[in-house]
Order: sequence, then C-alpha cells, then structure tokens
Amino acid sequence: MTPDQKAPVCVLGTGLIGGSLLRAAVGAGYDAWGYNRSADGAQAARADGFDVTGDLIEVLTRAADADALVVVAVPMPAVDHLLGSVATFAPRCALTDVVSVKAPVAAAVRRHGLAAHYVGGHPMAGTSESGWAATDPGLFRDSVWAVGVDEGTHPQPWCRVVRLALACGAVVAPVVADEHDRAVARISHLPHVLAEALAVAGAAGGDLALGLAAGSFRDGTRVAATAPDLVRAICEPNAAALLDVLEETLTVLSAARDRLREEDTLVDLVEAGHDARERYESARRWEITDIRPGDHDWLAQLRDAGRRGGVITKLD
Amino acid sequence: MTPDQKAPVCVLGTGLIGGSLLRAAVGAGYDAWGYNRSADGAQAARADGFDVTGDLIEVLTRAADADALVVVAVPMPAVDHLLGSVATFAPRCALTDVVSVKAPVAAAVRRHGLAAHYVGGHPMAGTSESGWAATDPGLFRDSVWAVGVDEGTHPQPWCRVVRLALACGAVVAPVVADEHDRAVARISHLPHVLAEALAVAGAAGGDLALGLAAGSFRDGTRVAATAPDLVRAICEPNAAALLDVLEETLTVLSAARDRLREEDTLVDLVEAGHDARERYESARRWEITDIRPGDHDWLAQLRDAGRRGGVITKLD
Repeated sequence: MTPDQKAPVCVLGTGLIGGSLLRAAVGAGYDAWGYNRSADGAQAARADGFDVTGDLIEVLTRAADADALVVVAVPMPAVDHLLGSVATFAPRCALTDVVSVKAPVAAAVRRHGLAAHYVGGHPMAGTSESGWAATDPGLFRDSVWAVGVDEGTHPQPWCRVVRLALACGAVVAPVVADEHDRAVARISHLPHVLAEALAVAGAAGGDLALGLAAGSFRDGTRVAATAPDLVRAICEPNAAALLDVLEETLTVLSAARDRLREEDTLVDLVEAGHDARERYESARRWEITDIRPGDHDWLAQLRDAGRRGGVITKLD
Repeated sequence: MTPDQKAPVCVLGTGLIGGSLLRAAVGAGYDAWGYNRSADGAQAARADGFDVTGDLIEVLTRAADADALVVVAVPMPAVDHLLGSVATFAPRCALTDVVSVKAPVAAAVRRHGLAAHYVGGHPMAGTSESGWAATDPGLFRDSVWAVGVDEGTHPQPWCRVVRLALACGAVVAPVVADEHDRAVARISHLPHVLAEALAVAGAAGGDLALGLAAGSFRDGTRVAATAPDLVRAICEPNAAALLDVLEETLTVLSAARDRLREEDTLVDLVEAGHDARERYESARRWEITDIRPGDHDWLAQLRDAGRRGGVITKLD
C-alpha cells in the first residue's frame, strides 16, 4: 500500500451521507475523523465511537497537518461557509464533496481559490431519513458514485476520491459537472417533484382515497416523506436543469391529457413509459478498464466512457 | 356455519387478481372453481391443482346449479362479453367483480339486467406482473377491498362478497361506485400516469442518467413496468375522473414551475407534498362495528363510515 492509497479522510458534516461515509471509511481501514456543526450530532457520533467534534478549525488544522482528503458533506446552502474555512485552514488539501449538484459547488470552489485540488463527487444513495441516527456504513454498497472529470482535474486528488468511493463499496461513474446536473434533474430531482405532486393529489381525496391507497401510491410518494428543507436544498440549487425537464414533462403530460380527452386513449404515454422503464431495467453497467489517470486525454476518454454507461470498479 | 357463509365461488378470469382470489378462496375452505379464456392459462391453473376450464358455459351452468357467487375478474374491455354469458346461463347468481373501476361495470351490469344480484368489488392489491404464474394466495392479506354500497344494494349478495374478501385476508372499505372511481383516479391511476412520464424523462437522459438512477427513480417508475395493455385497461375506462385529477396536477406542477423560475423556490409544493405524505402515513383505519346489513339506513351509514376511513374487519 502506498501512502496515498488510504490517505486520511476528514468529513465535514456527519449527517446521513457524511456520517455513513465516515463509518464506511473507518470500516475500510481509513484514518478518518469528522466535524459536525450541531453539538448533538457530534455527540451522537462520538457515542458510537467515531472521532467527531464541533470544532471546525481543529479538524481542518488536523487535515492540513495530515494531508487528508477533505470531504464537504453538507447541503448546498451551507457549502460556501465551509469552503471559506477550508481556504483558510486547509487550502492545500485534496478536496471533494458529496453534494447533490456539481456545477454550483465547483463555482463556489473556484471563488475560494480551491479548484486545483478539487474533484467533485456525488454518491447516488440515500433514504428519506437524515442525521447521524440514519447513518449506515453499507449505504454505498453497490451504488454508483459520480466523480468529476471536468477539464483541469488533477490525477492525484482524483485517484484519492475514486479509491475512497470504491472502498465504500460503490462503483464510480465519471461525469462532468453540467452533465451530472442535467442527469440528476431527470432521475433524482424530478422524482421528488412528482412525488410531492402525487402526494398532494392523493390527500385531496381525503380519508377515503388515502384509505384505498396501495403500492403504486406508497412507492410513488415515498420520497415526499423526506424533510422539506432537505428536498429544497437538493432541488433548488439545480433550478435551471430542473426547470428544463419539468417543462418537458408538463408537455408530455399535457399531450397525454389531450389525447385521453379527445380519443379516450393513453396509448402514446403508456407505451413510451413502458419502453423507457424496460430500457432502465435492461441497462447494464460496463467496466472501464483501459484508461490510466494522467495519461494523454484521460479525462476526455473517461467523459466519453461515462456518457456510454461505463463505470470504474477498481483502480490499480 | 350457515350455507351462506362459505357459499361456492365461481371466478371468471384467472389472471393475477382472479387467480389469486381462487387460490385464497380454496385455501380458506371455499368450494371454488374458475374459467380462463386462454387454454394455456387454464392448463397452468389445473397443473397447480385448481379446477379451471376454458368452457364458460360449463362453469356458469355449474354456478347456477350450485347458487355460487360469480366473480368477474377480467380487464374492463372484456367485461361486457362475460356479463352477456352470465345473463344467459347464471342470471340469478350473486354477482361481483374485481375490476379497477366501478361505475362502468355497474352500468354494464344494469344493461344486462343483472343489477339486483350485483355488488361491486375492487381489491386494492396487485403487482406489476400478470397471469396465473404471478398469482399468490396471500396477495390480499392486510389489503383493502372496496365493496359497493350503492343505493339498491341487497344485503344477501353484499354479505357474501364481504365474507369472501375477509376470508382472503382483506379488510373491506364500503364505497359507492362514483366515489370509488374518483378516489382510485387519485391513488392508483394518476400514479401510473406519473410513473410513465417519469420513466420517459429519465430515459431521455440516456445511459448516463439511467446509470446514475437510484431509489427515487426506481420506486417512482416501478408501475411503468406493468404491461401497457393492462395499464390502459385500468386507466382508460376511468377517463373522466382521471382527466379531472390530471388537470389538477398539471395546475400544481405548473405553479411549482412558475415559482421555481421566478423566485428560485419549491417551498409551496414541497411543504404541501410533505404534509400530504405525513397525512397518508398517519392515517389510521378504524373498525366499523355497529352497522347491520339490511337494517334501516345501513347503506347510508356504511357510505358515511367509508368516507371517514372506516373499514369492516368482521361480519357476524
């Protein structure tokens, strides 16, 4: 093992994602510690045997001394404040994040002069719960972890982030920030919006409708149980991409409504939706094996592979 | 046990719902047999030891001789044809159905002169699979079975249907046809429409988006895996109620889009959706105990109790 392969990890924010990451990293043999703004959250993590404090300067100073990978694991609205402290106390550390959008984080990272050591990340995992109590070291197992391959990415922090994601049990999808944000608008943020709207429609039917509700309503509204502040923190920073796909979906639904009203049929929507779900079910991830970080054109090659559904499952 | 308590049952259509009903009824000690239009489907049921044939006249003649409860368990487009045969060969049998809409079935029943013995039913259970291979005697356990309490309902067939539903492990929600159809537009048919639209939006993001898709997309599109013909047979006969709630949902989504575009916030939709999902999760069914079938005003009392979320869990 080279020193780089399990370099220390400093997690800023020990909620569902950051806390699960801390648990998974420690479980995989990393020297890892964390910061949590709320004293109760830090105390809960310490009670479970993890090295978490509410002293941001202390954890960042330690990260700088240990040359740790710093992981920003707070909702988007809290990112800017944390990056200010990172720029002051650990400006030369490798830096990543697990925030649900990538372009706004990358812009904040540039504003703080931290771009040279930064590689964006987004583990595609979660539940409708939040906080340390919901953390699970197995949360990332068999999940996909998006890792940035934007122009200017440096191989060293990139390899550190990929190794950490793989050590947590995920596979890595290489993707640039803008394309990530457009993709998650479709498969994560739109599902939230539709789930909220479906819940509203069901509850408007009163006790009778809610009493008859079964699997399709339960599954279709599951993510509406997520805390409203968290849903907003996930979706609102991606407003531009979400507006595009929401508009697209309003057009699809309006066309279905028109055809149902005029011709008594939902055939177009139902067949297109079934084909789309089949495509999702039959999509097979394939392993990217022939690209070496730092080689000529490695980022362009990874971008291309990611667009075609390729994932990284190991790093030599 | 009076003869009425486990009177014979004749199931017309042994797909997912009818076949599961046949299995559950036999398991509960009923003398039950079935008809399936497809020879393969009937053969598959016989291979599992069930009394199912492709001879409709034979099963209906037997139902008439045994004074069986006849259960229509085919998709809406096939109902009219079956009712024609019921009117010819078993016109005095108690009659129910398990079709996903109630007013169109009731209208067809009236056209065939079978209304006096008819009580509508709709078990709120299912999977995205279909056919005998998907049948499961436990499909109805702990589910809700809507049973009609429309004006003119006769206590005797009503009790038979309720007893059968209870014997299959369900609780019974009393509801009139129109209100049922408006409720299921909200909690069953709209979920199908939104799942299809979400699947379309995800697949439009290509391999990258589908590769990043996790729980929210998987759950939100689950029912889009249902066979398109079946989704259409479920939703299209309820077009009027579905159009109303689809229009309502387009209005909600358009307002959310406008506020997100103009004020960068989803606050209205997300808080309303969360409240609605909380209401769904905290809804508690309560037991209807004080209403006796045939008593003065029993139907009106059951309608009122059903609207307030009451269910029947036993019948003396």
